[in-house]
Amino acid sequence: MNTLQGWDDTIVALATPPGVGAIGVIRMSGAAALSIADRLFTAKKLSEQVSHTLHVGVLTQQGRSLDEVVVAIYKNPRSYTGEDVVEFSCHGSPFVLQEIVAACLAEGARLARPGEFTQRAFLKGKLDLTQAEAVADLIASGTRAAQRTALQGLKGGFSAELMLLREQLLQFSALLELELDFSQEDVEFADRTKLTALLEQLERSTFSLLRSFQLGNAIRNGVSVAIIGKPNAGKSTLLNSLLNESRALVSDIPGTTRDTIEEAINIENILFRLIDTAGLRDQTTDRIEAAGMERSLEKMRSADLVLYVFDSAEPVDEVIAWKKQAEAASLNFLLVANKSDLVPAASSQAFLSALGNVISIAAKTRQDLDQLTQAMVTHVLKGQFDTEHTIVTNVRHFQALQEVHKALLDARRGLKESLPGDLLALEVRRCLQYLGEITGEITNEDQLDFIFSKFCIGK
Amino acid sequence: MNTLQGWDDTIVALATPPGVGAIGVIRMSGAAALSIADRLFTAKKLSEQVSHTLHVGVLTQQGRSLDEVVVAIYKNPRSYTGEDVVEFSCHGSPFVLQEIVAACLAEGARLARPGEFTQRAFLKGKLDLTQAEAVADLIASGTRAAQRTALQGLKGGFSAELMLLREQLLQFSALLELELDFSQEDVEFADRTKLTALLEQLERSTFSLLRSFQLGNAIRNGVSVAIIGKPNAGKSTLLNSLLNESRALVSDIPGTTRDTIEEAINIENILFRLIDTAGLRDQTTDRIEAAGMERSLEKMRSADLVLYVFDSAEPVDEVIAWKKQAEAASLNFLLVANKSDLVPAASSQAFLSALGNVISIAAKTRQDLDQLTQAMVTHVLKGQFDTEHTIVTNVRHFQALQEVHKALLDARRGLKESLPGDLLALEVRRCLQYLGEITGEITNEDQLDFIFSKFCIGK
Repeated sequence: MNTLQGWDDTIVALATPPGVGAIGVIRMSGAAALSIADRLFTAKKLSEQVSHTLHVGVLTQQGRSLDEVVVAIYKNPRSYTGEDVVEFSCHGSPFVLQEIVAACLAEGARLARPGEFTQRAFLKGKLDLTQAEAVADLIASGTRAAQRTALQGLKGGFSAELMLLREQLLQFSALLELELDFSQEDVEFADRTKLTALLEQLERSTFSLLRSFQLGNAIRNGVSVAIIGKPNAGKSTLLNSLLNESRALVSDIPGTTRDTIEEAINIENILFRLIDTAGLRDQTTDRIEAAGMERSLEKMRSADLVLYVFDSAEPVDEVIAWKKQAEAASLNFLLVANKSDLVPAASSQAFLSALGNVISIAAKTRQDLDQLTQAMVTHVLKGQFDTEHTIVTNVRHFQALQEVHKALLDARRGLKESLPGDLLALEVRRCLQYLGEITGEITNEDQLDFIFSKFCIGK
Repeated sequence: MNTLQGWDDTIVALATPPGVGAIGVIRMSGAAALSIADRLFTAKKLSEQVSHTLHVGVLTQQGRSLDEVVVAIYKNPRSYTGEDVVEFSCHGSPFVLQEIVAACLAEGARLARPGEFTQRAFLKGKLDLTQAEAVADLIASGTRAAQRTALQGLKGGFSAELMLLREQLLQFSALLELELDFSQEDVEFADRTKLTALLEQLERSTFSLLRSFQLGNAIRNGVSVAIIGKPNAGKSTLLNSLLNESRALVSDIPGTTRDTIEEAINIENILFRLIDTAGLRDQTTDRIEAAGMERSLEKMRSADLVLYVFDSAEPVDEVIAWKKQAEAASLNFLLVANKSDLVPAASSQAFLSALGNVISIAAKTRQDLDQLTQAMVTHVLKGQFDTEHTIVTNVRHFQALQEVHKALLDARRGLKESLPGDLLALEVRRCLQYLGEITGEITNEDQLDFIFSKFCIGK
């Protein structure tokens, strides 16, 4: 399966985050893990202990005590990697942890590459590729929905769905191949109507998975929301109100907030990254200003969703002008009429009908804020998905599924145009190839290395 | 022993550093730890498993999967705290970890206070107080020497030495008490000469421990070294040369560098924190400049050691003037004649003899740099200690030992002045009290809470 160097090495790495903590865990995997541990641990012979047991004692190197630790033993094949695994639970001093890793290296282990523990688990057949990728997703998960989809992936939920697709395709393929064997007799074993129905069903499943990617992407990476509008429209008030409104503020999770992101909130388990922009200047000024507006639009285009906030008392023409520009630029946007509490209901009604679909709120008093958040969620879900279905979160899976879908369409067209069976079979094999690449049944090493290189070290 | 609230609660905390890692460990301790774990872990009944075993499965809360984890079980009293302890080894997502802690809280655990696991270990008699403090020291250790002294403390090395002192004092005390029982008969059971010899011996041991504190402090916190001198004396060159010279640069350990510290180096396992100062102006200028010099001296006084760096070609008078000022200010300093390679050896010799003890180096070419580092180490060790003896690293221990020493001196004076036995006994009881406080045999709760509050959460 692979010709890469170093798969027989015993590897070691710090598995817990860097920094000072109560404890730090060092993980070692490979044929020599137990014998290396035996040379460092003097209390008893670890290699003679039963798998899945814990042992307390001191690690020493050349007579020098390194730390008092708890050693966890997992014996091949009953371990994460499928190899012998030893974990040292140490006192959480970066210095002490570094010394213990160094001692393992001195005794013959080498430092693990990022994701190498999981890559070994994959190579030993403990996980398929989508499950291995779910491990990385779970570690990176920052919301309940991300956690759920990753856990579903880890349990093989996504793989199971793909397997089903694959089986149906194999069935189809078998019929075609049979037909090819008897091609000179010019019989059709494979009922063309049945085949067409099967292809249509496969195409629907694939398309449904493909469509789930937008949501999957939102679940995995969050939805960027640019809040824009003229000065004093109430953008910052809205931001603050949304943050207070949202009961699950996730911005306290380290790593959630990036440079360009102002605040992150969790609405119905979808992570929204709110970007508060500087107020837009009035559009009625000169051309230089218009160029500035163009630059702002440019910035907005990179957001998944734009909230255009305006004062309900503002002349409606300006809003209509902005809307036209946004539509021309194919922006995803919601029009948010703020300060609705300061405008008479009747005039507000006229206002709304002139604009079409507008969400009317009063950010300061939080009036109808839930209508806005609901619209934001609906925008992401597009009313078509719920988080209980299998969701594609991985770009690699998405791209492979796109190829599957394309091949399926080609096959269906072929069927329609009475393409010879051997050409049809070619299309079906293409589908099977792409599906196999997702789960790792068909792989190439570069791709594997790329996938695992994105893991953190120690996993 | 204590009346504090909550010692019967089951406590939970993240034990690994915050942030994203391959794995994170959540620790739970208390009577309900196993039953709480049983409600979250569905694969098997954890409370029925043998102590010191590992179990793989999914944590679920109200039917919702939280994570696939490894559970480590330690049964009372064979655990760190002496209570039932459960450790969840989880995927290292801060979000997932937070969810699992929340699930434990929902099932009846409460968040652990900083150091509460170790405090419980102390209260259950698993560790004495100096051992518990050594746990915190080990976690904070940043050099091999700090690791060694903390591990020695953890193994009870320091306690053993104090126990010896205590036993000898108890012996002395017993003789005195005996004498008091027969006081009306005016006999002396306790041989005054023998008593004096015993007290002298105790005083010597205590004094030796007290003296070790300077080294202990250096080992634990590092030695601050201010590099000062006129502009162009070569201060920054010296700093760079020292940093390159030192093979164990420890400034890459997170948390080592603080705001005011420029660079940290490890010389012979002692951590030196080098502070490069702005060049001092020439002393020959006016009074306002002299006030500035005074301020610089003020800054230098806070350093453990000052390296005064000057150009070997510089007029010797200025160096002498600085030296006088430094001596008047009781600074710990070393005179460092830089650029020795640019000065003829003969003139250099004359120079040195005029100043007394000067270390001659050429920072740029690293000539004789080892003589300087040796002098720095000697300054810390004062030639009196080696790191193989018991070293006092803890301010609390140091202060208690100071009280012991004072009481011993008082007792000896009392003996000399033929103080009545009951007053002598009082002094001895004072000594015993202070020794008992160090190991935790005699404690008060405020003190305990203060000690453990400095621990990190999860330990």
